[in-house]
Amino acid sequence: MRLLVVGSIALDSVETPFGSTIDALGGSATFFGYAATFFHPVLAVGVIGDDFPSEELERMAERGIDLAGVERATGDSFRWKGRYSYDLQNRETLDTQLGVFADFNPKLPDEYREAKLVFLGNIDPQLQLRVLDQVEQPDLVACDTMNFWIDGQPDTLMQLLKRIDVLMVNDAEARQLSGDWNIYRAARWIRERGPKMVIIKQGEYGAVLVDDTGIFYVPAFPLEEVYDPTGAGDAFAGGFMGHLARSGDLSPANFRRAMVFGATTGSFAVERFSIQRFLEVGVGEITARARSFGDLVRFDIDGF
Amino acid sequence: MRLLVVGSIALDSVETPFGSTIDALGGSATFFGYAATFFHPVLAVGVIGDDFPSEELERMAERGIDLAGVERATGDSFRWKGRYSYDLQNRETLDTQLGVFADFNPKLPDEYREAKLVFLGNIDPQLQLRVLDQVEQPDLVACDTMNFWIDGQPDTLMQLLKRIDVLMVNDAEARQLSGDWNIYRAARWIRERGPKMVIIKQGEYGAVLVDDTGIFYVPAFPLEEVYDPTGAGDAFAGGFMGHLARSGDLSPANFRRAMVFGATTGSFAVERFSIQRFLEVGVGEITARARSFGDLVRFDIDGF
Repeated sequence: MRLLVVGSIALDSVETPFGSTIDALGGSATFFGYAATFFHPVLAVGVIGDDFPSEELERMAERGIDLAGVERATGDSFRWKGRYSYDLQNRETLDTQLGVFADFNPKLPDEYREAKLVFLGNIDPQLQLRVLDQVEQPDLVACDTMNFWIDGQPDTLMQLLKRIDVLMVNDAEARQLSGDWNIYRAARWIRERGPKMVIIKQGEYGAVLVDDTGIFYVPAFPLEEVYDPTGAGDAFAGGFMGHLARSGDLSPANFRRAMVFGATTGSFAVERFSIQRFLEVGVGEITARARSFGDLVRFDIDGF
Repeated sequence: MRLLVVGSIALDSVETPFGSTIDALGGSATFFGYAATFFHPVLAVGVIGDDFPSEELERMAERGIDLAGVERATGDSFRWKGRYSYDLQNRETLDTQLGVFADFNPKLPDEYREAKLVFLGNIDPQLQLRVLDQVEQPDLVACDTMNFWIDGQPDTLMQLLKRIDVLMVNDAEARQLSGDWNIYRAARWIRERGPKMVIIKQGEYGAVLVDDTGIFYVPAFPLEEVYDPTGAGDAFAGGFMGHLARSGDLSPANFRRAMVFGATTGSFAVERFSIQRFLEVGVGEITARARSFGDLVRFDIDGF
């Protein structure tokens, strides 16, 4: 199934207790694309400035990220600068330079319009809607958002909710959006406003899927070394949607599998800075880790 | 297998956004005892003052909590007063009155000394050691502790670690004890100092067991209504140890089952104030909920 992502393609400068990067490859579409292409090619929609390193574009294209939908504009690429606390639990944004993203008006190439799976990365909900308007008949639309848009564009977000199938947010965002601190009530609130499915990402604790069939919980893969949480959520989305695209199966059982593949690609993302870890591992390692999630949660209480 | 608990038997005054209690039954041995007795009788060690309501003692005894090891002293019972934030994420202790607990010197009745399973509830580690000294040949000793003792009695705690099999702490306590923010490294640090097993409780996210066979994750049961988190950890311990006691099986597979029963009794504890919910449910409901944890985590990725 054709898989489309719209999101930022950025240059990130990140400080963590373990080191820092300057202008490293980042952005929601980037992390999504690197994770999803373990499973299926990706059609990317975004914008970059004329300062964007061409070798990064080449590497993305080689990987199976179609860049026909990525506009090259005159000006600077989107830049984000952030710093994590010693325990990686808190992130402070030090600087955001929208650059060419400020005037971004996504236009989908013809072949993108037939995409069946769409991931609307965390950008202005108006842009998310504009992309969605150009996709002819998607089978599944998933969407990420954040506190900034929940605060600033609640009406647009409510419009968007009606048109998407899966909302992916973290627990703070689910609480903020619904006004309810209980995440299961929050998920219900959200599902009553459009999305059939809500995925609540809980960082080091894992992620929860709430849909018509019930609740599914996938833990975070236990890691003794975490370098940089940037992009984990987008990498999760990439694994999730990538698996759906390659399998072409939108059954409840397959959404559970997709959650596990999402947790897997999310866990690789945080093991190095930027998309570094995705350059080191292959499909075999992805699959092996995904399978090992079974050991983490397996128990048998029949007979008790 | 004979199951012994030492801990507080208290009168709690708790404020939550949903209501409050005054002098309601509380304490670590109490929550443990009410949870464990769904599975197996409990030998309780503790102290109460002459103000302790006798009808509560009768109810505990009827339930299978042996009170021969509970001393009736002259003076006031242990009292704790606390308040939770609107989202139940933070707890503030408003007042602690040790009362008769201040001079507590646990003496085990003869029949208690043969206990095979011991739970050292969260009290002064010197008292925990004193109880342990009186148990002849336990098969498994589990222990809870908290920031107050980690700060105030690190040496005693290190002595204790050498003599226990299972340490149960929450993630903040694991981090504080080990000095490491990564909970899997923290678990390793703790296991290198004595306990074969570490259980890290993560509140609404669930709990993790780390032992020689690997890592096991049990989510928290998804609840749309949580009234009072007080006692959840002790109720978890009660379900965990109670199941081990009734099954008499200390195999790795059975520890996983015990984690699920612990998560189950922990989840019932928070549905009402004090031990109220344990008076409403029966073994059938406990077992049904424990089995339903399977649905929460079940997936199949063979072939992918």
